[in-house]
Amino acid sequence: MEEKKKIEVCFSPLLFHFYQNTNANVVVIDVFRATSSICAAFAAGAEKIIPVGTVEDARKVKDAGFILAAERDGIVLDFADFGNSPFNFTPERVRGKTIAYSTTNGTQAIQLAKDSKNIIIGAFTNLSELVKFLEKVHADVILFCSGWKGRFNLEDSICAGAIAQKLIETGKFSTICDSTNAAIDLWNVAKPDLRNYIEKAAHRHRLRKMILDDVIDYCITIDSVKVLPLFKDGVIVNII
Amino acid sequence: MEEKKKIEVCFSPLLFHFYQNTNANVVVIDVFRATSSICAAFAAGAEKIIPVGTVEDARKVKDAGFILAAERDGIVLDFADFGNSPFNFTPERVRGKTIAYSTTNGTQAIQLAKDSKNIIIGAFTNLSELVKFLEKVHADVILFCSGWKGRFNLEDSICAGAIAQKLIETGKFSTICDSTNAAIDLWNVAKPDLRNYIEKAAHRHRLRKMILDDVIDYCITIDSVKVLPLFKDGVIVNII
Repeated sequence: MEEKKKIEVCFSPLLFHFYQNTNANVVVIDVFRATSSICAAFAAGAEKIIPVGTVEDARKVKDAGFILAAERDGIVLDFADFGNSPFNFTPERVRGKTIAYSTTNGTQAIQLAKDSKNIIIGAFTNLSELVKFLEKVHADVILFCSGWKGRFNLEDSICAGAIAQKLIETGKFSTICDSTNAAIDLWNVAKPDLRNYIEKAAHRHRLRKMILDDVIDYCITIDSVKVLPLFKDGVIVNII
Repeated sequence: MEEKKKIEVCFSPLLFHFYQNTNANVVVIDVFRATSSICAAFAAGAEKIIPVGTVEDARKVKDAGFILAAERDGIVLDFADFGNSPFNFTPERVRGKTIAYSTTNGTQAIQLAKDSKNIIIGAFTNLSELVKFLEKVHADVILFCSGWKGRFNLEDSICAGAIAQKLIETGKFSTICDSTNAAIDLWNVAKPDLRNYIEKAAHRHRLRKMILDDVIDYCITIDSVKVLPLFKDGVIVNII
């Protein structure tokens, strides 16, 4: 029988160096809203997404002629074409296009994970596609929660817990990692009434005041899109 | 009505700078085993404990004639008098004495928290005394989990959750902090069978192989000692 691969959950970009593993598939998770939006963009037919770390680099790619989606702290950058809501990535705007994309938390995490086997963009919306990929390309898995400006956040953690639980259910993965066990436990607390649980986290958060209710609903809907965004050589493409 | 004070939980020393608040009471938690052992030492009649950060400093205080309790990665330092089990701090060894104490995680966290209003040593074993103090000296509270070498760990997190829940039940505290909500949820998952829950974390951990079962039982026994160790001016004393 093939050896089980291990799952680890990293709760903050500031802790990622503990988990760095060039043989692992890393799933970057930023439920509100970067990774949900990236999935939405590919579902709407975007061809490529270029994640951009700093505001300065965002300006450069805009000046170079790319469509730019960019925000900081939930506010659209004034020189960007639009911000970070998944609803911005409409087929009219993005189909067949290359989009440059910069956000407070998510795109920074993607940059940090660059020395991994594969970097996958994960969200509730593409949960099953993620799990299929991780089962097929069987390697250790790091579920990398983008958090909020370096802090732990609930929505990314329970999404990590949902992925971890599905992976363990395949029989091909196991965990000895405390944060993975915590994420799974939190997911099981949240699961019976996910909307209500997220509300507890989301509505008390500074940024969350700016997220419309329908965006929250969109971001916590499991398996609404069939995409698997993969970051390689500086660019995110959909490999399904 | 007096304003409610806020509770925050910090899951790792690497994240502590986000929470730094000179007006807050900080509770340093290292269930396995530093803070449980410090409480045990005072319960056994120790007069003072000097937390020591580095191995080099531990050697210096030993050379200066202090009794030294010191370990790294669960191993007693060869020049120390004894290690980090709460059972080492017997009345015969510690009554009326000043002990220098250095461990992998806990004593480092104490040093990091030094610019706070009060630094309290917290464990399951002195839970109610902690809560009494925090209710009386009514200020914001930071529950600082020592973690394992910078990583999140379950036992410190659920202890933080237990404290947070008790504080909220007093009606004098509230939280908008995701990690506090997570800690409380994890505590409620763990509470019905704490021993079994801790087993899941503890027994899979490298260090945990070296912790005898009776030490685990000791460290998760709520309110077994009536002590409230407070760190001030480089020294920990029991203020009850």
